[in-house]
Amino acid sequence: MRGRFISLEGGEGAGKSTQVRRLAEALRERGLDVVETREPGGSPGAEAIRSLLLEGDEQRWTAEAEALLFAAARADHVARTIRPALERGEWVLSDRFLDSSLAYQGGAGGLGVDRIRALHKFGSGGFVPDRTLLLSLPPKEAAARAGRRDTEGADRIGGRGDLYHRGVSAAFEALAEAEPERYRVIDASGSPDDVAAVILAAMEDLL
Amino acid sequence: MRGRFISLEGGEGAGKSTQVRRLAEALRERGLDVVETREPGGSPGAEAIRSLLLEGDEQRWTAEAEALLFAAARADHVARTIRPALERGEWVLSDRFLDSSLAYQGGAGGLGVDRIRALHKFGSGGFVPDRTLLLSLPPKEAAARAGRRDTEGADRIGGRGDLYHRGVSAAFEALAEAEPERYRVIDASGSPDDVAAVILAAMEDLL
Repeated sequence: MRGRFISLEGGEGAGKSTQVRRLAEALRERGLDVVETREPGGSPGAEAIRSLLLEGDEQRWTAEAEALLFAAARADHVARTIRPALERGEWVLSDRFLDSSLAYQGGAGGLGVDRIRALHKFGSGGFVPDRTLLLSLPPKEAAARAGRRDTEGADRIGGRGDLYHRGVSAAFEALAEAEPERYRVIDASGSPDDVAAVILAAMEDLL
Repeated sequence: MRGRFISLEGGEGAGKSTQVRRLAEALRERGLDVVETREPGGSPGAEAIRSLLLEGDEQRWTAEAEALLFAAARADHVARTIRPALERGEWVLSDRFLDSSLAYQGGAGGLGVDRIRALHKFGSGGFVPDRTLLLSLPPKEAAARAGRRDTEGADRIGGRGDLYHRGVSAAFEALAEAEPERYRVIDASGSPDDVAAVILAAMEDLL
């Protein structure tokens, strides 16, 4: 049996990496083989591109170059990590995937989601997750968590202004509304245990 | 007055970098300001991408990821080096540009020139040179020069097989035929002095 591909999405500080770990544990307890991965990155080539994307000045890349680098990294991640794992029957949980490019570069960055989808079609054949879990926070809490990250040293993209991050949130909400079958919106403002329970419930139809 | 953008194209060992240097000298003697550049690379971001593209295993990247990386590097090269120089009124001579992606990844690599053009439209607004000089060698001499390079240590792409490089040559010829206004095909089998003279003659209408 082919495994399933699940992406966790959301703004900075929504708890995605914690919840990837929690969900992986829960799925392993059910006897599934699980690969935990992330974007940008998740394969040796894509991790090399990650450094180019997240380090350096905010102005290091044009918006278009940034989107092309994300698409290149994703093409490598899909070809070298995600598809082979699915073909082995494993489940793949990714901390961010295509929808982050749609929301960040396409929505908040102004390039448009259709153009980002076209790059994804070129690079990865338009491959989409079986389920996308959007970890959603009220704007005030999102800003507070992002603020805490800023002082700890945000990366090139996480460090962009409040307006950009509000655009990201709005874009994620619109993407979730447009694809209710694939998306589940998860209230991420509770404790990690509470959020993990909600996520598992949002996966039951796939299990 | 806006400067002119000239690209030199051709397979491995055709003498492009020598001729960029020679042409730059000739244009400077005429009082022009000239920037010499190259691809992949030509700006700090694009040079970082160049290392990813030319180092490592032949199988390091999928064909699609490779094409996306070239487009990203080119977007940076155009935005950070080429356009600013042209706006300052300088001439820009580039050792390879878009047509290399069309011939290598699009033609020999099998992705199709239209898909490569679409990436270029996304990344660089479809920006094309004022003149493209194709340094052309008879197949036998091209193979001999490429063979000498192999023993000196070719990069990831230059080291591909003879069939691939024949596909590159054929694609370049087709591109030149399709755009006679922009392209000039230069017989590159003569001495560097002879080739430099032919190139300068092929530029006269722009000078």
